[in-house]
Amino acid sequence: MNGIFTGLSAFPLTPIANDAVDERAFVGLVERLATSGVDSITALGSTGSYAYLTAEERMRVSHLAVEHAGSTPVFVGVGALRTSQVLANVEAAEQAGAAGVLLAPMTYQPLTQADVFELFRTVTERTDLPVIVYDNPGTTHFSFTDGLYSRIAELPGIASIKIPGVPADLAEAREHVAAIRAAIPEHVTIGVSGDAFAATGLNAGCDGWYSVIGGTLPVPALAIIRAAQDGRAADAVAASERLAPLWGLFSEFGGSLRVVAAIAEQLGLAPAGCLPLPIQGLTSAQRARVVVVVDELGLD
Amino acid sequence: MNGIFTGLSAFPLTPIANDAVDERAFVGLVERLATSGVDSITALGSTGSYAYLTAEERMRVSHLAVEHAGSTPVFVGVGALRTSQVLANVEAAEQAGAAGVLLAPMTYQPLTQADVFELFRTVTERTDLPVIVYDNPGTTHFSFTDGLYSRIAELPGIASIKIPGVPADLAEAREHVAAIRAAIPEHVTIGVSGDAFAATGLNAGCDGWYSVIGGTLPVPALAIIRAAQDGRAADAVAASERLAPLWGLFSEFGGSLRVVAAIAEQLGLAPAGCLPLPIQGLTSAQRARVVVVVDELGLD
Repeated sequence: MNGIFTGLSAFPLTPIANDAVDERAFVGLVERLATSGVDSITALGSTGSYAYLTAEERMRVSHLAVEHAGSTPVFVGVGALRTSQVLANVEAAEQAGAAGVLLAPMTYQPLTQADVFELFRTVTERTDLPVIVYDNPGTTHFSFTDGLYSRIAELPGIASIKIPGVPADLAEAREHVAAIRAAIPEHVTIGVSGDAFAATGLNAGCDGWYSVIGGTLPVPALAIIRAAQDGRAADAVAASERLAPLWGLFSEFGGSLRVVAAIAEQLGLAPAGCLPLPIQGLTSAQRARVVVVVDELGLD
Repeated sequence: MNGIFTGLSAFPLTPIANDAVDERAFVGLVERLATSGVDSITALGSTGSYAYLTAEERMRVSHLAVEHAGSTPVFVGVGALRTSQVLANVEAAEQAGAAGVLLAPMTYQPLTQADVFELFRTVTERTDLPVIVYDNPGTTHFSFTDGLYSRIAELPGIASIKIPGVPADLAEAREHVAAIRAAIPEHVTIGVSGDAFAATGLNAGCDGWYSVIGGTLPVPALAIIRAAQDGRAADAVAASERLAPLWGLFSEFGGSLRVVAAIAEQLGLAPAGCLPLPIQGLTSAQRARVVVVVDELGLD
């Protein structure tokens, strides 16, 4: 198992101001993460708006992340709609000094299992960087089968799979993670995503957590994962349940991105309206609800 | 009602060879359409792989389309994930001499109804070109409500709505089209898409057909629409039913794009493997089935 692909990987926002990357704000987020002791930083994940940025912006963001992360390993999202664009992003990530790349099969036209296998085959053939398979059906609308996990995970260079949420029931979650584990080589780690599911996923045997809140609120995320890693399963669940009002907002406001962006704005970590248009972010009424939760939970 | 936004709008492929636009093949498709007498050509629709091309490639394709379409009006797809990219595409379409632009709310993060309204408001404010609202949930994963149709259609500059397929039952289709018609200003046309539904949609009162097969096989598409326009509803249905084996392949092989690309390749209108990777196109076994249907139906 590859050590750097375990633990908490924090996904920072890429704050936007006036339709350009707010480099100062981004560097601030990266430095905050490096200081907090997260195990890795994944720049240009979905939370980092990779899909909205130009190749040049992505190259610049990758460089900034690596330069400001200190000794914390940086992974870089390289997904794009066209294979040749993915390969260009991979090359840029290599040049930036990334420790790995994260690849989601972005779609416009629905892709087949064969299309996606070939995409991963092409990428792993072209780079020596370890590759994280990014399974995020909420944004890609592509569903991996366990069989496809298996075929892709056997490609040389595949280091980890970022799976979407696990079943809420621990026994079912264990069974789910065990089924994926049985289908892939031992050195490939499994990281859970869907922050509300993280404690359960970790207690169910996931090796890591690819975390949205970890990118903006590393302290409460670390409380969850360190408990799980120490075998204090109940403490991990309690640390997650403490954040229930936050998970409630994620669910009520259509996902984590807009809520976490509003939190970052509220905490002064990102400028107002930090998401790329056409994503307007939360309404004023929704933001007021976020402020209440941030205050109640003492998030900072 | 705006005359150029009625009738058959043909959507050509943008053939790719060696990861670049095959300009000769694209020009050949456009000239074939202009000669065939379609009412308009929409370059860079979903069928034209707009989502996969760079801004530079899209600008070049727009120019080629206008230059080679003769007197046939050319509409250009301007959709992109980020509003500023959409606006740049609109400006390029203006410079190319497009008669209108087609805008789909592309998504990576799911968009709200307010996000999409604001996107269309921004675009219509910035251009004098008529705008076609492109409702294509199969690729955008965004669903317009009739209320949103209504609010957007009232924006100055909105010329037409490209709706996805209609109910198969004619009475239900009539009701569906009438409900949209009642929600939008009279000058905004309604064009059906989903080729298998076109005859029903036209018989149910749609003003036009935004057509995938029209872009590669204009003759059988014109047979359907001219019958519908002449009030020969049964002839339109018969002309569509003649193509049932083709609709069957669309449904069996996951949509129209891969099938139409295979037909264009089979007819020598596009080079082998003309879709942008990672889309591999049909398998050999599937292509063999396409060849049988092309021969049976005498398509050319």
